[in-house]
Amino acid sequence: MAHVRARFVLPPGVTYLDGNSLGPAPRSAAARLAEVVEKEWGEGLIRSWNDAGWVDLPARCATLLAPWLGAASPESVAVTDSISVNLAKLVGAALQLRPERRTVLTVTDGFPTDAYVATSMVDLLNSTRLERRESRHRVRAVPVEELLDRLDHDVAVLSIPHVDFATGLRLDVPRLVEAAHEVGALVLVDAAHSAGALALAFDEWDVDLAVGCSYKFLNAGPGGPSWLYVHPRWHDVLRTPIAGWFGHATPFAFDATWEPAPGARRFLAGTPSVLAFAAFEEALLAIADVSPTVVEDVAATLTSSFLALVADRLPDDVSVVTPTSPEQRGAQVTLRLAHAWEVNAALLDRAVIGDHRPPDLLRFGFAPLVTSPETVRRGARELLDVLDSEAWRDPRYAHRTVVP
Amino acid sequence: MAHVRARFVLPPGVTYLDGNSLGPAPRSAAARLAEVVEKEWGEGLIRSWNDAGWVDLPARCATLLAPWLGAASPESVAVTDSISVNLAKLVGAALQLRPERRTVLTVTDGFPTDAYVATSMVDLLNSTRLERRESRHRVRAVPVEELLDRLDHDVAVLSIPHVDFATGLRLDVPRLVEAAHEVGALVLVDAAHSAGALALAFDEWDVDLAVGCSYKFLNAGPGGPSWLYVHPRWHDVLRTPIAGWFGHATPFAFDATWEPAPGARRFLAGTPSVLAFAAFEEALLAIADVSPTVVEDVAATLTSSFLALVADRLPDDVSVVTPTSPEQRGAQVTLRLAHAWEVNAALLDRAVIGDHRPPDLLRFGFAPLVTSPETVRRGARELLDVLDSEAWRDPRYAHRTVVP
Repeated sequence: MAHVRARFVLPPGVTYLDGNSLGPAPRSAAARLAEVVEKEWGEGLIRSWNDAGWVDLPARCATLLAPWLGAASPESVAVTDSISVNLAKLVGAALQLRPERRTVLTVTDGFPTDAYVATSMVDLLNSTRLERRESRHRVRAVPVEELLDRLDHDVAVLSIPHVDFATGLRLDVPRLVEAAHEVGALVLVDAAHSAGALALAFDEWDVDLAVGCSYKFLNAGPGGPSWLYVHPRWHDVLRTPIAGWFGHATPFAFDATWEPAPGARRFLAGTPSVLAFAAFEEALLAIADVSPTVVEDVAATLTSSFLALVADRLPDDVSVVTPTSPEQRGAQVTLRLAHAWEVNAALLDRAVIGDHRPPDLLRFGFAPLVTSPETVRRGARELLDVLDSEAWRDPRYAHRTVVP
Repeated sequence: MAHVRARFVLPPGVTYLDGNSLGPAPRSAAARLAEVVEKEWGEGLIRSWNDAGWVDLPARCATLLAPWLGAASPESVAVTDSISVNLAKLVGAALQLRPERRTVLTVTDGFPTDAYVATSMVDLLNSTRLERRESRHRVRAVPVEELLDRLDHDVAVLSIPHVDFATGLRLDVPRLVEAAHEVGALVLVDAAHSAGALALAFDEWDVDLAVGCSYKFLNAGPGGPSWLYVHPRWHDVLRTPIAGWFGHATPFAFDATWEPAPGARRFLAGTPSVLAFAAFEEALLAIADVSPTVVEDVAATLTSSFLALVADRLPDDVSVVTPTSPEQRGAQVTLRLAHAWEVNAALLDRAVIGDHRPPDLLRFGFAPLVTSPETVRRGARELLDVLDSEAWRDPRYAHRTVVP
């Protein structure tokens, strides 16, 4: 992967193990953004929607992204909005496909937004009904290991992460899809913590719907556009609750009535941010010659070598919560320790960047596209040194600020 | 306004009368974006969420924007997502506040997205109900002049543009608000075509909810972030149907339950695009010393002088559809003529940039922050010349491509 890493800005002296929160900048991003701002916006002005191809940015990004999702057709992919917004669209679309069912089944302790959005959408439906006899929609959250038992004929959609953001646990998506389909439920996968790190195969796994983000392992920049996936069987059927003009079959006809664009494109909504999309396109171009399967192998190697370096040398009060089998984890390793905040702060002070998740988790991401074996070794060495020396006890590491 | 115009990139030789579609780039945007990409993202990586203040970008933009909306408190303003998505949130929130009412009242021929989104949200509610006795939600669209007559006790929310995107007609918002409130309806104003061009006074007009965009008269760049306004009376009451983590009172606590942030901030959803927000902040800083009242006066002067130059000299088959009274129009002038497309294309060929809206409208925007009197004179002169000489009949102007 050295030739791929060379396409990204990895500042010297920094041991970056947080590509699962924010991927590094593609080297080409600065020049591309300068071109967009100075030439396309500055000189081209409105003409650049056509002349500079702005209007095709979402479609170009979808085409480049499709192989990373295991989507044979770019029509299964839309790049748009944020994960929160895309979850709202897809939960709404799924509930419309299964109107007689009332349950969104999800996991406890998933990324909070997934449950927040499902709950707020369900609240919208319940609180705008007058008829008391109408049974209420509900969000049911259960531990991952109980999902199979809780799938029943009232489940409209099973909403699951592919890789748990906190623990790094990788769910067995094909098995859950099979079980969900047996009871007639749809499956919505949040792949924020795996796209660009693992070989996704949504078509093959028969996943109905998926969402994910661009700014972690896909390196699109802070707050970059989200994406969503729609299985071909639903291309002509799904209805979006947010019918915006960019999702219209012919947006610039300014029709009074909304006609859905083909496939996932109907889930585009408002005018896309050209700055954000241009950065994402650069990030996708930088990895267009890379195989997702190879990337998944590299992720397994990097996480395995980190675990091999540290697992047996951790103090007794520090445990590894990420599964030891590579097939059961994403490209991250999470430790549990009471002083996770302070240890993370001490590591930051040495320019070793992982992150802390409350209350007691310390996460290290091993973004396979951009993390070198040397970075893994340095990270392991510094972690063990901070723990062994108890450097984290320094009072200046107790002050808390927020990091997304 | 010459000192303000000097802060924006206005390419020489271009007569730009399309600031109502895309405002020009602030001169400071290129350097700011370079700083964000090269230093903050490139070197700072994830640390920049705190160290470079990324996490506060939405709040900083809201504070700078509030005076342009006539919002005394920045807590009434959230900068987030696109107009389409913000309309979905606010239509959903309004219907939850008036659950016993079933009608969204809006205008025919408004910007299409406004009706599309209201309709798709209503479809979501109707199609997920089992109980046939439950009366259905509906979107009713009527001509502007019939709005007052159609306001009744079934209207949950009156959704109106402030300035019509096509004709430039400015609605009498305070009067409509008064009438809507008399029947207990909320008012949602789409100010995409007035924010940054007119002196908005949402607090004073007693508007309940509003949305708008940043990339037209506010110059944030293509597809820049949208904003929404919530009247102080609703700050603690409104529920968003898209409860994302950035709208949580304490996002980085990763709570299992969503607790709304104070005021409009609860309507933030996913992680904001730092690139898009940084450009918007530069655009707002470039006009922070300008009075919206003065801007509205300049808009009236520019549109009046354009009309004075052209109105009496137009061929018989060309009419002015924008009201002649400055109080009844926005910062644009729209003409109706059968060959609007060809005339627009002929003007583009002379680097006079207005735009065409199907089927037969030709729009000229007079963005008061960035349009010089000389630009108005040149635009008028070239328009009259294209019409008088019938230069638009050249067959190469008949080819059609799309422009947002």
